[in-house]
Amino acid sequence: MTTPTKTLWQERYRDDHQQERLISNPVIEQILAHRSVRAYSDQPLPEGWLETLLATAQSAATSSNLQVWSLLVVEDPARKERLSKIARQAHVARAPAILVWLADFSRIQQQATKRGAELPALDYFDSALIGSVDAALAAQNAALAAESLGLGTVYLGSLRNDLQATVDELQLPPLVFPVFGMAIGYPDPDKPAAIKPRLPQAVILHRETYQPHPQQDELISAFDQRLGEFYQEQKINVSDWSGHVIERLQDIDAGGTARSQIGPVIRRQGYPMR
Amino acid sequence: MTTPTKTLWQERYRDDHQQERLISNPVIEQILAHRSVRAYSDQPLPEGWLETLLATAQSAATSSNLQVWSLLVVEDPARKERLSKIARQAHVARAPAILVWLADFSRIQQQATKRGAELPALDYFDSALIGSVDAALAAQNAALAAESLGLGTVYLGSLRNDLQATVDELQLPPLVFPVFGMAIGYPDPDKPAAIKPRLPQAVILHRETYQPHPQQDELISAFDQRLGEFYQEQKINVSDWSGHVIERLQDIDAGGTARSQIGPVIRRQGYPMR
Repeated sequence: MTTPTKTLWQERYRDDHQQERLISNPVIEQILAHRSVRAYSDQPLPEGWLETLLATAQSAATSSNLQVWSLLVVEDPARKERLSKIARQAHVARAPAILVWLADFSRIQQQATKRGAELPALDYFDSALIGSVDAALAAQNAALAAESLGLGTVYLGSLRNDLQATVDELQLPPLVFPVFGMAIGYPDPDKPAAIKPRLPQAVILHRETYQPHPQQDELISAFDQRLGEFYQEQKINVSDWSGHVIERLQDIDAGGTARSQIGPVIRRQGYPMR
Repeated sequence: MTTPTKTLWQERYRDDHQQERLISNPVIEQILAHRSVRAYSDQPLPEGWLETLLATAQSAATSSNLQVWSLLVVEDPARKERLSKIARQAHVARAPAILVWLADFSRIQQQATKRGAELPALDYFDSALIGSVDAALAAQNAALAAESLGLGTVYLGSLRNDLQATVDELQLPPLVFPVFGMAIGYPDPDKPAAIKPRLPQAVILHRETYQPHPQQDELISAFDQRLGEFYQEQKINVSDWSGHVIERLQDIDAGGTARSQIGPVIRRQGYPMR
């Protein structure tokens, strides 16, 4: 294993378990080096960035080659400002571009209508799931391609804080809904982002059947402490991981958001999700 | 742009539009070269493959650092055989390993129970969506890392053909459900996989607001023809893209599958998806 990979493992897990077996190459190093970037420099995006990222996104797998996602790019400052209000994140307005990843069966519906065909499968949950998963696979390719070009990204689940407002702002027709956004830009060198620690592999991994690790509680407690240290380093006012995630899930509409309405909005867009 | 990238673009889109602006580097080339592999050689997976792929998966972004996914690895031949029956795909039994990507709020629920906290947000659709999207981002990192090691993968949405059977086989507890599977192995050199063509970028891309391309119908018709040619080359009995996707969506339970039950199964696993 190379020294950069060893360092990246150390930053990601903050422990030494298993790292000796890790296989390393430049693609894997690029993936391990991910960090979410929320502060951007003034440098404009390079020529060809959008075609390149879209080509990598379209190279991801797509269920049955349905290709039921679309990409909407926002660069207009006034619209970015409005999206940043929905997201309640000021950095959204300051990124050179916001990519909105859309689940989108409208193209297929139009072809079906042309041929006089009905698509009853759209009424079932599987369709909303396929659109969301395909959009996510595409987006992750684009995020990684962006990072390989020296750009930084951050996913914006926050565009779902008020999904109806996002749908209205982007003038989305029936059968189209935003899965998430993604801000993109060159990272501000004065505000470098850190690699965020993750749970130990033993907590995530199951073999053959689902069996939580016998020491899961101890492993999570140790992680709580490691993440508490990380938050202190970053001057973020969060005590531990468990406390943070529990708080996040105690109130779906915390801080005046409308995340409880995401299901109803998607249903109104034409997905009954039976 | 490098010659390999030009060739990859040509195989992906089968047209020459825009490719001159494409930015190229080894990571982007790796992403563009994706193909789904359904035929594997006898070569065993390399030592450390699982720790490596899991580390790349955990390096993906995760909503609010919730980390609400798990990875279940199946290598037992009898279990792979049973999964291949659920998937109705013989190659599933022949892959050295099947990775099952799980949405999983059970870890957080356990921590909440320990602290006497309730998590009402789990009742809303956003939670099932976050689990699914986070699993997808993680899986796509792992797929790409696998490809960079010379391995091949294919996503198995087919594990949802009978989701209850998959849940039972893997003994999944409440708040855990399979989003999709992924077969992995060294590609059989005698059965090389092809790059599958995708819709032109002009059909996928929107700027500022959602506006279908004025020539969308013509662009899709031309793509129908290109994909028809591809299917002929591959000796696959499908006439065109639109016909294929319409057929796929006319009967949710085509061929005796139970995809109409995916929503009910996920609800029984503890996600009301309000």
